[in-house]
Order: sequence, then C-alpha cells, then structure tokens
Amino acid sequence: MDEPRSALAGTAPTLEDVARVAGVSRATVSRVVNRTRNVDPVIQEAVRRAVAETGYVPNSAARSLITRRTGSVALVVSGAGEGMEEEFRNQVFTDPFFSRVINGVMGFLRPQGMHPVLMLAETPEARDQVVAFLRQGNADGAVVVSTHADDPLPELLVGAGLPAVLFARPARPVPIGFVDVAHQEGARLAAARLHANGRRRVGLISGPLDVRAARERRDGFLEAMARHGVPVVPTAVGNFTQASGETAMQWLLEQLPDLDGVFAANDLMAQGALHTLREHGRRVPEDVSVIGFDDSSAATASRPALTTVRQPVEEMAAEMTRMLLELIEGTSSGPKSAIFDPVLVVRQSG
Amino acid sequence: MDEPRSALAGTAPTLEDVARVAGVSRATVSRVVNRTRNVDPVIQEAVRRAVAETGYVPNSAARSLITRRTGSVALVVSGAGEGMEEEFRNQVFTDPFFSRVINGVMGFLRPQGMHPVLMLAETPEARDQVVAFLRQGNADGAVVVSTHADDPLPELLVGAGLPAVLFARPARPVPIGFVDVAHQEGARLAAARLHANGRRRVGLISGPLDVRAARERRDGFLEAMARHGVPVVPTAVGNFTQASGETAMQWLLEQLPDLDGVFAANDLMAQGALHTLREHGRRVPEDVSVIGFDDSSAATASRPALTTVRQPVEEMAAEMTRMLLELIEGTSSGPKSAIFDPVLVVRQSG
Repeated sequence: MDEPRSALAGTAPTLEDVARVAGVSRATVSRVVNRTRNVDPVIQEAVRRAVAETGYVPNSAARSLITRRTGSVALVVSGAGEGMEEEFRNQVFTDPFFSRVINGVMGFLRPQGMHPVLMLAETPEARDQVVAFLRQGNADGAVVVSTHADDPLPELLVGAGLPAVLFARPARPVPIGFVDVAHQEGARLAAARLHANGRRRVGLISGPLDVRAARERRDGFLEAMARHGVPVVPTAVGNFTQASGETAMQWLLEQLPDLDGVFAANDLMAQGALHTLREHGRRVPEDVSVIGFDDSSAATASRPALTTVRQPVEEMAAEMTRMLLELIEGTSSGPKSAIFDPVLVVRQSG
Repeated sequence: MDEPRSALAGTAPTLEDVARVAGVSRATVSRVVNRTRNVDPVIQEAVRRAVAETGYVPNSAARSLITRRTGSVALVVSGAGEGMEEEFRNQVFTDPFFSRVINGVMGFLRPQGMHPVLMLAETPEARDQVVAFLRQGNADGAVVVSTHADDPLPELLVGAGLPAVLFARPARPVPIGFVDVAHQEGARLAAARLHANGRRRVGLISGPLDVRAARERRDGFLEAMARHGVPVVPTAVGNFTQASGETAMQWLLEQLPDLDGVFAANDLMAQGALHTLREHGRRVPEDVSVIGFDDSSAATASRPALTTVRQPVEEMAAEMTRMLLELIEGTSSGPKSAIFDPVLVVRQSG
C-alpha cells in the first residue's frame, strides 16, 4: 500500500513505521487498519495508538481493493413518473421530510466514520447510474427513499445482487428489506382526534394514489371515520405539495361548504389547506380543525402550528441504515422489516 | 484490474474482452476507462461501445489507485460555535437554503457521473473526520458551506493542501476560492423597495453579527436607508431561524409601535416576522411592508408570499463545484472568486 496524498506532504509514515511503533507485524497492522476480524482487542488498541502517533494515513483505494469495502453508502431518492422529473427534483429539495431522512441516515453513519453519497434516481439514466455506481464499488450498498409505486429501482438493485434497504414498503413483491410507519394506524389517530373535537363534516386531502402510503392513509382514515359514524368523507387528491393542498381545500369547501374538519396526508398539504381556509375567512381551529401527517418543520412553521401525526423519520432512517450495514457485513440472514408506530402531536390547528 | 462484484455474478467480462471486441490493445482500453488523456476520439468511442457491449465493469478502487481520483466530491456544511452543535444540525436540516445548495451541487456533478458525499463539520472531531476523509482519498476535494466566522475548516483544508472552494467569502484571509453574492447590493435593493413603497418608519432584523454576510446585509441596508433620508433604523439581531424572527419582530414593535416596514436578513426570519405582525393585528402589506432575503421555499410558502432578495443559490453552488473540479484537474492556476448579483423578487408582502 502506498499513500499518494501524504507522500505529497513530504515524510509519509508507512505501514512499517506503525508496525515498529506498535511492536507488531506488518500483517497485524494491515488486519487492524482494514478492519478484518480476529485481532486481540489489546493489540488493536496498540495499533490504533501507533497509527495516531505516527500520523499514518491508509489509502482508501488500496484498502478497498483488499477489503472490497468502500466505507460509503449511497442515499438514493428515487421515483417520478415519465415527464415529472423536474417536479420531482423541486419536491425533493423543498419537502422537509427528506431533510429528516438525511439527518437520520447521517446520524447513524457518522459514529462509524461513514458518510452518505447523495443520489437522485428519477430517470432511467439516473437509475442506471446508481446501479453502475454501486457495481463499480463506489459504495457498499444503498438506502433508498422510493416515492413512486412504479419505481423499478428496488428490483434493479435486487436483480444486481446489491445490498439495499428501502424507506417504505416496496410497492411490488420484491425481496428487499424496508422500514415503514403504520400508515393506517396514523390515519386512525387523526380520525379519532377530529371525532373527539366534535367534528362530523369532515374532508380528506389524500396524497397521490399510486403511492402506497397515500392509499393506506386514505383507507385508514375513511374506515375510522365510518366507525365513528361518518360514512361519507369527500376526498380531494393532491400530490404532497403545499400548492396542491390549497387547490384541494378549495374543492373541499365547494363540496362541503359547512365543513368543520380536514385531515391532510402530509404537513405541506395541510399548510396549503390553512392558507385557503384563511382566505375564506374560516378560523382554525375554531371553525375548522386541520390535522396533518409527518411532523416535519412545516408543522411548526405554520400558523396556527399543525396538529399532526408524527412519523419517527429520523429513527426509521437510522434503522434502515443499520439494516443495510448488517447486509453489507453479511451478518443478516435476509431481508428484514421494521414498522414504526406513529404518534399524534397536538398543537393549535385541531 | 479485477472485477470483484461482477465476478460474483458469474461470467465477468474482462479488460481483455473489451480490447478484443474494440479491436485495440489492452493498454488503450485502460487509458480510455481511466480517463487519461491523448486517446483519439474515434477510438474512445469504439472502446465505449465495446464496454457497453461486453458489460465490462471497471473496479473503482483499482482505477482510483492508478488515476489517484475517486470521482467523488465532499459537500461539507461547517460551522457552529461551542455548545451550539445541536442547534446547528437542526438548522441545517430545516433551512431550505441548504437544500438549494445541495440541488445546485448535484445538478452540476451529475452530468459528469459524479456525486456528492454529504458531511457535517460542527465539532473539532467532525472537522478532523472531514480532513481525514479527504486525505485518505475518499473524495478528491470539498465544497464547503461555512456558516460561522470562527470556522477553522477552511484553514485546515488549505493547510492540508486539499482542493476546496467555499460558498461565501472566508471570514479570515485564507487563500481559498469562493463564490458569494453581493450582500450589500441586495440589502440596497430591499431599502429602495421599502422607500419606493413610501415606508419611512422601518426596522431591521439582522442575522448573527459574527457571520460576514449578516454584517454586510446590515451595513448595506443602514447605509441605503440613510441615503433615502432615514438616519435611524432600530435593529434586532436574530439567528436566521423563524423563531428568532418572531422574537425580533416583537422587540421592533416595542421600539417603533408605528413601524411600517421591515427588512429581514433571510426568509425564515421574515416568515417569523409575518407571524408576529399577524398576532398584533397588523396587515401585511397594507400596514407593514416585509422584505426577506434568499428566495428560498419559505418565501413562497408564507402568506402573504414574501417579496425578497433572491440569491441565485443553485447557480452559485454550481459555479463553486465547477471551480473545485478545475482545482482537482489542475487546470486552475490558484484560488478564484465569483460574486453574483442579487435580484429583487416582488410578491405580496412588500
């Protein structure tokens, strides 16, 4: 192994220097540095001290050739239907939900000295790039936030034998691990809150119905409202953006002029609903209760602040990353899943 | 070169296979695959076709050992004073400004088949990790969004001889390239707009004064208001969060109860000001004009939507990345800088 970068700086310490200072063999130093197993913890500690003392910098490319590991993980946001690529990119970079995923992934990787490579996969070319990037050994695996039911990326990754874990249950039966939240249960919490608030003339702003999570939130909400004795709930379909929430709210007010409660399938659409309600002179929560989903920064930024169904996104993202590292290290026996419980966070809007 | 991953899949095409299909030597294939120079474009094309035909996957670690390039770039958000780490992380992941930077960096790297490795550097340990990550050859250089005047990261990177470019002029005289916006000019645009709207009892919500951009926006605004005949402008200092904008607005209303205009040094603080004004029954823009800075997603999410000074963040981030690639490729003769012009975007608030 050579050290191109530190060599440039002048006197580059070598593996031999470390071995001499630690009083062990070159092979032992190599084993510790490359994190292969079966080195006595006491000797490991001595080697680490010697590495620190000498200022030895192992070259990652050389190490990677030996260990077949890069220490990097790809964080991929995939999805978007044909012709929706521009809209998809705008949404990824304005929806605070994705920031929470990144936060959770980074929070888990950092203590391991690992860092995520950020990638988008919204076109066939971009998906090919992700697969090629992983196959070429630039990253050891991928955590994937898939936003679209038709998204072929999970199957592509599984087909290529690449380690991957999804945020959200796959739309098609692909043998791949995932984390998810109990969407129906979350929607039930929203319905129970509206009912407890005495709301009976209730509307729903759903997410796009080709997204499984959106369908489940809708189904959970409609079923729970039916159980509460409200059999008919006008439903407008948005696309998880604030603007779509404004339009949906407009439509709901036309359908149900005396509406007194709304559940929106994410916070951004709930924020849009608040804007439309204010324009129509409806007070929230006095005239209309509004409940969102996610508990993203939009929920606290809104006025009134949003009562919402909290997804524990950071914890889910951390668990997804933990599952991926198990796969990469070969300590996992196959695809795993974990379903997290949502929690109702009560603020001012409902 | 061997191909560990594709070898696992069964019949792995080799460099020799590509050479045979392309009708060129093994060395020529290697030169094309490793992107070293001086290969005839026609031959390059033939090799690329053969690579596609055979399904040959070069191993990045092996290539990296030869080219001394990884094809990765670190995108580092650094800053935070002692004890502010938690606040810093929350801010990074909720401020839509950073999303725009990520968007611009990714937009420039993608067509080159490159992807950013996302890192935070808010503690001494995290800064050491960034430097070590680059020295070990995990990435070829760093683009850095530095949010704090005391941030030692730019000097650490320059000291280690690592290619780096900053978003925002360095606080201390470090020989490092950067992109920035003309902050004073932006603040002058805001002052001119308030003046043109007939506003004379005006307050300022500044960013933290240890941030150079915040000082420049304040100085530009105060000077321009003085030129417009308004010598005294009460100034509250926030920390670029929405909550701090609410508190600052509260204080300004106490100082200047008949206030009719506000300039906030970013959109999130302007959004906070809108909330406080509404609580106090002030109509925007009828009673009070509010102008923000950035033109982030908060500006369009607010009601009324914010009139704001637009930083062309995506273009600036792309230019920063272009400068870095020039440094990495050795085609740049030294640190460069580029200052972008801000633009006033007029919406409803002022």
